[in-house]
Amino acid sequence: MFDLTCTGFINTHVHTSQQLGRGIADDVDLMTWLHNRIWPYESNMTEEDSYISTLLCGIELIHSGVTCFAEAGGQHVAGMARAVELLGLRACLAQSIMDSGEGLPASWAVRTTDDCIQFQKGLYEKHHNTADGRIRVWLGIRQIMNSTDHLLVKTRDMAKELKTGIHMHVAEIPYENDLVMETRKVDHGTVTFLNKIDFLQDNLLAAHTVWVNNTEIDLLSRAGVKVSHCPAAAMRMLGFCPVREMLNAGICVSLGTDGAPSNNRMSIVDEMYLASLINKGREVYANGTTDPTALPAETVLKMATINGAKSVLWDNEIGSLEVGKKADLVVVNPFSWPMVPIHDCISSLVYCMRTENVVSVICNGKWIMKDKKILNVNEEEVISAAKQASSELLRRAGIKIPTRMNVL
Amino acid sequence: MFDLTCTGFINTHVHTSQQLGRGIADDVDLMTWLHNRIWPYESNMTEEDSYISTLLCGIELIHSGVTCFAEAGGQHVAGMARAVELLGLRACLAQSIMDSGEGLPASWAVRTTDDCIQFQKGLYEKHHNTADGRIRVWLGIRQIMNSTDHLLVKTRDMAKELKTGIHMHVAEIPYENDLVMETRKVDHGTVTFLNKIDFLQDNLLAAHTVWVNNTEIDLLSRAGVKVSHCPAAAMRMLGFCPVREMLNAGICVSLGTDGAPSNNRMSIVDEMYLASLINKGREVYANGTTDPTALPAETVLKMATINGAKSVLWDNEIGSLEVGKKADLVVVNPFSWPMVPIHDCISSLVYCMRTENVVSVICNGKWIMKDKKILNVNEEEVISAAKQASSELLRRAGIKIPTRMNVL
Repeated sequence: MFDLTCTGFINTHVHTSQQLGRGIADDVDLMTWLHNRIWPYESNMTEEDSYISTLLCGIELIHSGVTCFAEAGGQHVAGMARAVELLGLRACLAQSIMDSGEGLPASWAVRTTDDCIQFQKGLYEKHHNTADGRIRVWLGIRQIMNSTDHLLVKTRDMAKELKTGIHMHVAEIPYENDLVMETRKVDHGTVTFLNKIDFLQDNLLAAHTVWVNNTEIDLLSRAGVKVSHCPAAAMRMLGFCPVREMLNAGICVSLGTDGAPSNNRMSIVDEMYLASLINKGREVYANGTTDPTALPAETVLKMATINGAKSVLWDNEIGSLEVGKKADLVVVNPFSWPMVPIHDCISSLVYCMRTENVVSVICNGKWIMKDKKILNVNEEEVISAAKQASSELLRRAGIKIPTRMNVL
Repeated sequence: MFDLTCTGFINTHVHTSQQLGRGIADDVDLMTWLHNRIWPYESNMTEEDSYISTLLCGIELIHSGVTCFAEAGGQHVAGMARAVELLGLRACLAQSIMDSGEGLPASWAVRTTDDCIQFQKGLYEKHHNTADGRIRVWLGIRQIMNSTDHLLVKTRDMAKELKTGIHMHVAEIPYENDLVMETRKVDHGTVTFLNKIDFLQDNLLAAHTVWVNNTEIDLLSRAGVKVSHCPAAAMRMLGFCPVREMLNAGICVSLGTDGAPSNNRMSIVDEMYLASLINKGREVYANGTTDPTALPAETVLKMATINGAKSVLWDNEIGSLEVGKKADLVVVNPFSWPMVPIHDCISSLVYCMRTENVVSVICNGKWIMKDKKILNVNEEEVISAAKQASSELLRRAGIKIPTRMNVL
């Protein structure tokens, strides 16, 4: 019996800062989610909270075979960087950036466009290309409803100057498109407007990108924009992303877990399984009938590996097992109950594999998990610190979760 | 740190005979799935294959906290019963029954209605209420397209006589409804016809039940029919089941995994996670916008426990932790990385828990898994036997799986 070796998985949209907030916003509407739970939570985080949250999230990422991730834009890049360096992972880190919008917490509402730009320049200078080259710093745009045009244009130009990427939530809900049409005088939504200001470039990683029409898919394709598809979050909150159409249009679509309060499971292994299921089912919505052949396993595996590497602008070094690339590897045991019997290697890896099957992980040539043991941090100490930090953070933020039925 | 104890989960639609066929029919269209893969596979099974397949499936069920399941209708109830007795599980077993239809394998095509009825009567007499009362025998109807009216009526009457349940695939695809309308002269589909022949009763467990209109939902509700919702199979093959509407109409909806060639993962833990995600997303299809409050965690937990017990007509003894009920229990460790931190117990159990967190399982008052070790069979011996039996079965059945890209 031999273990399988596979190139490391790449999670292209994950909120490491939100790991301590797992379960704080389940089964609630979108405005409660944002205004009463997530913003109070994030705006009350300390750098130490961010560090612990990223450690906890990183442990889950490694257990699911992830060697590289793109932070979706969170709090305290310094805290994230410290955790990523320690864990031994590879990451593109970004701060959550907003310079406008309704209902922002007081501490965020005072930030000017220039504050946002200068602050990120400082993060780039301090953290980019650190941790043996495993950490890169990207620019963040939370979403268009919290960005002035000035911020978008400045971000676009600074990314070009620094030769780095931009991570942005794009076209998440119909309301976003409606607001853009109304306030920014374009005939469809966010993607149409971003094209107008020349923001669509091949260094843009657009997360979710659910509510786009065919013209906008064409715009994304021509510009070489990368899309991070997050199947669980799409189902739970946003709607069906036209993944098949995007892939057919030549867009590089990769996979993300989103954050713990949007998904609960930060597992790219589960996300592969979901991606295929949901996009087969989506055909009923799009065309009236399911298509069990849509998004086959080999396509999904590419999304989680080489497309992930392209999405984080790192495919010259990672994303496939090739001579000359970095050793980012996952060792899988396919001979236990979740995967046996194996009649189709690729579908077994994509549809059957669970985190149980992920045995060991190598990043940048070094073991970071061996025989299911995380090597560089003590899991139990992190879990204990996380429990304490998260309950203190919720208390500080004034977040109370209603209790449900008394089942347990 | 204390472990959590929860009532055992109930999987109300699982093809134990299909476990050896995991991965034989991924990413193919429905007719290839049925005629070129599943029917040749099932029609070539021996009783020993069924025994090994059920053992392997049972191991996966136990690891995901299942203490009771309803067999969807498979091959060789005698083989299933032997495995269930040994594993220590609780089950409602049923044979796959067909007495007509296009394209059946030769060995099945010769069966008459009376063969089908008499054969099941024999199974009932031999296996019902065996294994300390853990095994019950139900009647099977594979699907309406493989049943004469005579078989349906005889089955209905025999179930009443034996005081047992009927397990049937219902309204799986639009073509099924179209064919029923054409050949059986009713104005909608399978449910409408089953109502006409008085087949809808409170001992019917209808699996999938995707393509039903409001009138039919009302018919199911009035008759007390139970529905097994299989989220993964629905997404992959069938379409969106109107679960919210059924629950609102008072129908008892429970959860099933379906079989390994329709899902790959036989985990009711994953199915809970999927049920909520998919039915939140389905609101876009049904009503144009997602509803993150649809199918909240407590509803999903009920579906996997007490609704499961009602669906298998066993809620007087199982499905909840109550004085006087049987001890079917799952011990969960919530203090490891998939679930920490816990801010909302119920959502944590439903959305975060993975099979990793299921530590021990008790069925009928006896430990069947302890500290992740299956007690009554040797896992490695079963896995080894399963690998051999499945490759021999595929060879006998002449099933060849095309290879995909050379990734590994």
